[in-house]
Amino acid sequence: MSTAVSPTDSSARLRCTDRATLPSRFATVRAQTEQFCEPLHTEDFVVQTEEHVSPTKWHLAHTTWFFETFVLEPHLDGFEPLNEQYAYLFNSYYIQAGERHCRDRRGYISRPTVSEVFEYRAFVDEQVHTLLDQADAATMDTIAPLIELGIHHEQQHQELMVTDMKHVLSVNPLRPSYRDDLPEARPDKPMPLRWVGFDEGLYEIGYDGDGFHYDNETPRHRTYVQSFQLSNRLVTNREYMAFMDDDGYERPELWLSAGWSTVQEREWTEPYYWERHDDQWYVYTLGGLREVNPDEPVCHLSYFEANAFARWADARLPTEAEWEVAAEGLPVQGNFVEDDAYHPQALSADAPGHTPTHGNGPLHQMYGDVWEWTQSHYSPYPGYKPLPGAIGEYNGKFMCGQFVLRGGSCATSQTHIRPTYRNFFHPDEAWQFMGLRLARTPQ
Amino acid sequence: MSTAVSPTDSSARLRCTDRATLPSRFATVRAQTEQFCEPLHTEDFVVQTEEHVSPTKWHLAHTTWFFETFVLEPHLDGFEPLNEQYAYLFNSYYIQAGERHCRDRRGYISRPTVSEVFEYRAFVDEQVHTLLDQADAATMDTIAPLIELGIHHEQQHQELMVTDMKHVLSVNPLRPSYRDDLPEARPDKPMPLRWVGFDEGLYEIGYDGDGFHYDNETPRHRTYVQSFQLSNRLVTNREYMAFMDDDGYERPELWLSAGWSTVQEREWTEPYYWERHDDQWYVYTLGGLREVNPDEPVCHLSYFEANAFARWADARLPTEAEWEVAAEGLPVQGNFVEDDAYHPQALSADAPGHTPTHGNGPLHQMYGDVWEWTQSHYSPYPGYKPLPGAIGEYNGKFMCGQFVLRGGSCATSQTHIRPTYRNFFHPDEAWQFMGLRLARTPQ
Amino acid sequence: MSTAVSPTDSSARLRCTDRATLPSRFATVRAQTEQFCEPLHTEDFVVQTEEHVSPTKWHLAHTTWFFETFVLEPHLDGFEPLNEQYAYLFNSYYIQAGERHCRDRRGYISRPTVSEVFEYRAFVDEQVHTLLDQADAATMDTIAPLIELGIHHEQQHQELMVTDMKHVLSVNPLRPSYRDDLPEARPDKPMPLRWVGFDEGLYEIGYDGDGFHYDNETPRHRTYVQSFQLSNRLVTNREYMAFMDDDGYERPELWLSAGWSTVQEREWTEPYYWERHDDQWYVYTLGGLREVNPDEPVCHLSYFEANAFARWADARLPTEAEWEVAAEGLPVQGNFVEDDAYHPQALSADAPGHTPTHGNGPLHQMYGDVWEWTQSHYSPYPGYKPLPGAIGEYNGKFMCGQFVLRGGSCATSQTHIRPTYRNFFHPDEAWQFMGLRLARTPQ
Amino acid sequence: MSTAVSPTDSSARLRCTDRATLPSRFATVRAQTEQFCEPLHTEDFVVQTEEHVSPTKWHLAHTTWFFETFVLEPHLDGFEPLNEQYAYLFNSYYIQAGERHCRDRRGYISRPTVSEVFEYRAFVDEQVHTLLDQADAATMDTIAPLIELGIHHEQQHQELMVTDMKHVLSVNPLRPSYRDDLPEARPDKPMPLRWVGFDEGLYEIGYDGDGFHYDNETPRHRTYVQSFQLSNRLVTNREYMAFMDDDGYERPELWLSAGWSTVQEREWTEPYYWERHDDQWYVYTLGGLREVNPDEPVCHLSYFEANAFARWADARLPTEAEWEVAAEGLPVQGNFVEDDAYHPQALSADAPGHTPTHGNGPLHQMYGDVWEWTQSHYSPYPGYKPLPGAIGEYNGKFMCGQFVLRGGSCATSQTHIRPTYRNFFHPDEAWQFMGLRLARTPQ
Repeated sequence: MSTAVSPTDSSARLRCTDRATLPSRFATVRAQTEQFCEPLHTEDFVVQTEEHVSPTKWHLAHTTWFFETFVLEPHLDGFEPLNEQYAYLFNSYYIQAGERHCRDRRGYISRPTVSEVFEYRAFVDEQVHTLLDQADAATMDTIAPLIELGIHHEQQHQELMVTDMKHVLSVNPLRPSYRDDLPEARPDKPMPLRWVGFDEGLYEIGYDGDGFHYDNETPRHRTYVQSFQLSNRLVTNREYMAFMDDDGYERPELWLSAGWSTVQEREWTEPYYWERHDDQWYVYTLGGLREVNPDEPVCHLSYFEANAFARWADARLPTEAEWEVAAEGLPVQGNFVEDDAYHPQALSADAPGHTPTHGNGPLHQMYGDVWEWTQSHYSPYPGYKPLPGAIGEYNGKFMCGQFVLRGGSCATSQTHIRPTYRNFFHPDEAWQFMGLRLARTPQ
Repeated sequence: MSTAVSPTDSSARLRCTDRATLPSRFATVRAQTEQFCEPLHTEDFVVQTEEHVSPTKWHLAHTTWFFETFVLEPHLDGFEPLNEQYAYLFNSYYIQAGERHCRDRRGYISRPTVSEVFEYRAFVDEQVHTLLDQADAATMDTIAPLIELGIHHEQQHQELMVTDMKHVLSVNPLRPSYRDDLPEARPDKPMPLRWVGFDEGLYEIGYDGDGFHYDNETPRHRTYVQSFQLSNRLVTNREYMAFMDDDGYERPELWLSAGWSTVQEREWTEPYYWERHDDQWYVYTLGGLREVNPDEPVCHLSYFEANAFARWADARLPTEAEWEVAAEGLPVQGNFVEDDAYHPQALSADAPGHTPTHGNGPLHQMYGDVWEWTQSHYSPYPGYKPLPGAIGEYNGKFMCGQFVLRGGSCATSQTHIRPTYRNFFHPDEAWQFMGLRLARTPQ
Repeated sequence: MSTAVSPTDSSARLRCTDRATLPSRFATVRAQTEQFCEPLHTEDFVVQTEEHVSPTKWHLAHTTWFFETFVLEPHLDGFEPLNEQYAYLFNSYYIQAGERHCRDRRGYISRPTVSEVFEYRAFVDEQVHTLLDQADAATMDTIAPLIELGIHHEQQHQELMVTDMKHVLSVNPLRPSYRDDLPEARPDKPMPLRWVGFDEGLYEIGYDGDGFHYDNETPRHRTYVQSFQLSNRLVTNREYMAFMDDDGYERPELWLSAGWSTVQEREWTEPYYWERHDDQWYVYTLGGLREVNPDEPVCHLSYFEANAFARWADARLPTEAEWEVAAEGLPVQGNFVEDDAYHPQALSADAPGHTPTHGNGPLHQMYGDVWEWTQSHYSPYPGYKPLPGAIGEYNGKFMCGQFVLRGGSCATSQTHIRPTYRNFFHPDEAWQFMGLRLARTPQ
Repeated sequence: MSTAVSPTDSSARLRCTDRATLPSRFATVRAQTEQFCEPLHTEDFVVQTEEHVSPTKWHLAHTTWFFETFVLEPHLDGFEPLNEQYAYLFNSYYIQAGERHCRDRRGYISRPTVSEVFEYRAFVDEQVHTLLDQADAATMDTIAPLIELGIHHEQQHQELMVTDMKHVLSVNPLRPSYRDDLPEARPDKPMPLRWVGFDEGLYEIGYDGDGFHYDNETPRHRTYVQSFQLSNRLVTNREYMAFMDDDGYERPELWLSAGWSTVQEREWTEPYYWERHDDQWYVYTLGGLREVNPDEPVCHLSYFEANAFARWADARLPTEAEWEVAAEGLPVQGNFVEDDAYHPQALSADAPGHTPTHGNGPLHQMYGDVWEWTQSHYSPYPGYKPLPGAIGEYNGKFMCGQFVLRGGSCATSQTHIRPTYRNFFHPDEAWQFMGLRLARTPQ
């Protein structure tokens, strides 16, 4: 049953944006990961609160394992792992890379300790730099794309570390905050909702440049898109509370069948992280519990909720093709993790927008703040082939029953996102920074 | 929370193919349903073996309830139900039509007895005929499309009755057969596999005629399809056994992630209804246990298995757009339930095929035998709107996490299927007559 | 792993009360079983509503299988079973008698049909009579105790048939009754509760006579019993409703820890089969839904509820030794299944009681009406040895986590019960006719 | 629904052994608890591996909460808790003492940190000493028994800390040890098994002295015990391996019905913590993985396994009355936690034994090494009354479906155990240091 791990084969189709800056970009990303840990206590690194929420300690080690397994082991002569069992403990889901520790038991592992994990990181970092220093051109052709992939992989896990830590702290009745210095926007005059129109036609979507990208963004291909409209900004808490006040969580006709079952089984009556005290809605944030700010983008919605809201609003979610067509021509700007807000921010009516290539008016918040649910199931693009070997397990094997999100969030790094970037989650998941923008089909 | 049931609103968008024949078509379909029951004993009508497998008794009553609820109650003056509680017992999932008995408890209900259910059917049939006799033109405009819908609804349940009864009989260690007179094809020379090519281009798919159809087939719309190839016939047991012999069920790299989890949790090692005795594969059929016939289309595969097989075969599943483009120009012919085989049939090399409008060679078995899994998630067509009211729950609310199947099966009525017909099931389900045809993208 | 089935070994320790009447007693019990089925429709025989609730059809066949397996197969020369697979389908839990069909799937088996099961019964009955006719003395020594055991086994299943059928009919929203002619007592003056005292001392309990009994009633042995008091009659619905009105189901301090968990998980707020309509309590009975009669013995209580009630009443449940000491000298009389009430009956203040050998006043309802929960875990008596072979699985292997009940119920046959009879169920079970009598320790 | 917490009422029935030494005994036990933590890393304190396995951090805080809730809050004027939410976080199961955090989520709580928990301990310790210093005679009468109870409660949790930490470390694939300096006995000549006889008669069991004890040990009462024999020592690994080699885990006739189900569901084939490598049995100990020492007492057996072994050995488990009768006259000596072995120790043939008051030969290992399963369900003694208020939840509410163990283990403190001490666990639990001694009934 064993198929050899052959990341080399895969690397032929991987890209590296810029080899000159690779060592410094590697060092920067690795250091950033550790900076995210600064506000934490040792105990915080250990806890796993749900199967899909990993301990911080695990993220730190898994991203390290990625470089060890796909870069150092095959390409650094004489490489000896610091601890042979780490490969078993810190593999996530790469079946072709060997046996793994159960995902739902990551919180049972008190050792290696946090400081041992930091030693593991330092050890691997040093070896990667050694390899980069000594690699000849042929080796560099092979390892540069893999290190590039590892950098982007680590950025994904930075975002997961933030969202998982939010979950871990939130379930604690003491409600500790991650940081106490986080800002909040409260515009005098919030941005009104307007519709931006796009014409029907044959468009191209998908990645086709020289830069880094995942295999699931390819191949770039033609797609026919009927005329559509997008809302100029994200849906706000104010708008979502109107849905709630209109019995949104009690009207089955608004929901997908699987969504309605979920609402009933889990007794959903409000967005994730919201709670009610004394006739006021509060939301747990990385800055602690706050009153819900009505002008902020609504966040931590599942696909089911986003879809029900859209139906209630006599609209729908955009398809991912519509989103990508709309994104053409827009700068990749927004409230990212570099902005240090760790929460979506309210939009002022005088905020400058950008008019897309194909649209008839300015759009806001297309990047950052919250990942935008699209109505599109996560499926392969026409002609899509996963990368061969274990690296090919990165994306393709998840193309079943999940939905695509676009645009990044306040926990995403600006250097990580692209117009063609396809994120994907199951329709009942809400612990990521997820929200929505409305779409509709002109009659 | 209650929204009034308003089938009338829906009927504006429903169609009736032929009003003149409506009473006779109604009578015919209702009688056919009962003919499917003739080989059964009273005890067989009662049993429910899984949540999604309903008792025959329930199908008989539910299809009757459909006419009672959507036709008689709103449109026959002075209508009194035979038993008011039947509405609770025999509603399936129409939330807007009122409370329902739990789906997983249908097998707990010994009363009404089978003969009482037949009385219920006779009662409702008589009332429907009364209504048809006395309806004025305006009423007829309203009820004809609803009765038409009920006829097609009943045909769907005829197919489910057959597949559910197969399940019920199969779990019995005595292995009773449904009928002992079912034929089996054993061609001397089976049909070889060939690839039929289709050009890329802008096509239209979806329903746009005058006949009956479901809302999910609309609107007809443009879609861009890249060039592709389809196999000329269905995949056979012989081919599937080669996959099994090549450790298909033990190689995670062939499977979707959710598929691999399912294989492991349920310990799948062969298709549903297959079993091994003395180095020979057997399959439970409605004619009892038989040796697997290598030239028959492989049947009772889940999406997960179909997808893994296709990957193993260095191919893929077709999209539903590809299937529909390929079906253009072909006659709706094949091994349907009217052919009385109740099992997919092996194809002889000299069987006549039909060349589709857009393809470069003859195709076989596009209709009948087995529903063909497509790789397409079941999603709304651009501009799709579900019908209003309870009738609108028929299709749209299931557009999440399911996959489309095309072409009908040996348990489908020929009068029920269309080129644009979209069937849909979850990727782990295999108790329907489901198989596959291969597709690939030319390099 | 296989141990030969050796009922012969066991029979050395089994008894037969009266060989002369054995054939007629066998015929009578077998006929009675079928009489219990007369009010049923064919569909009613098929349904299984919970794992521990078997279809009537299964009870009919299983009791037959018992005679076939333990009497005919080993002792009737040339015996050929009617259908070899029945042994697999109708074994309950006798691991040493071979593989069995899963207990929770008995309701999936539509075949053999009901009439085939009656044919199976007739076939086995005829063979047993043949064997009895032709048996020589030595064979008779072996088979008479086994047939006697089979008779008592069948009586146990008669009671289970009644309680299981009650469950099957009760879950049907149509609420069918089993019979429409069942009586109900409504005394003008109900019996008041009094305490009957018993002295401490060394007593003997357990079976030690010549008659039929189960192995778990032996050996008769000495036990020291502290002085105690028993209530003169069973606890009534009136008394139990006072507990409910005093928030009995909401006060954790009254409950065992496992009981309180059960109350919360299953959301218990009243006894099994009770329901509330318009400020009135109703109870489902075999005669249909009735208003709760406050003077009837409270019935269908779990151990958890009986124990919580007793604690609330500042009393406790009796031990099984106390119950058996109290029963000494009392006639085995009461409301049994032969009385055709199928429900516990209210007790009039002028009903005659009987004063036990060791007690200081008359006791009522010690037999019949409801099985009385004792506080005693079901454990082996000192010196207890289970019978060897498969027959030994009858009782001993269940001595873990269950509680003893005494005295029989309105669904028990009078010819089946004894003072030493130990029934046992899990503490969360309530679908048998179960209630309680209070005990207390004098201060 | 709320019942006031009234530990005062309970204290009337609680005892304090020695008031003069109370402050020093309190200080000693509190310090010992912290000494058990010395070999641990911060991360080790956080993890919960099963619902019944609590984090070390939780044990440290819960034992502190016990003094805060039952001693300081009601009896120290002006007491202010360090953190009001700790009462919610660190209550275990005292429903009458208020709401609690879910038991299965104790491992989700990273805060308070370990050092904060140690601060909490220091804070409460200081307050208790203050209270002891300033208490007048009446207050002392009330608090001394409660502090005594808290000391014994803390000793119980010391044992649980050890067994829970063993579990936490054992599930880690790195297999860390708790300490590396633990001894192991390997006698040249192990002790042979002999039977010690006891006469039948009327005995007394239960506590009736002046010292500390739990309510479940009272009242002392008469019980009639039939003549019996006990094995002179504990069952060894050698003997248990013979059972395994004789297919003990594959023969249902040896097992209780619930035990056999457990064996099959959980796929048990050896004792807990055992594993097989290269034809050799290993066992995880607090000193790491070791080869199984055949002369050590077998340990970490469930009741089900102990009972099956006894049946296989043609013997049985003793009742708790038998054990207590046998213990009369024996010194409370053995391998306790103070002996610093943290594992049961092999017994040499020349080890001195002690002849009990009622027995005919010397017994070994009655105390320490492993808790001995008795065949007795955990039930109330005749006349037992739980203490009133929340303190009464300590023992009585668990008297359902559990079994009694006697004698303490290598993880028990010698100052904690008594001849009348009744420990209790469910029959499927094996993570405590549990083993068995055989009994039999002379024929």
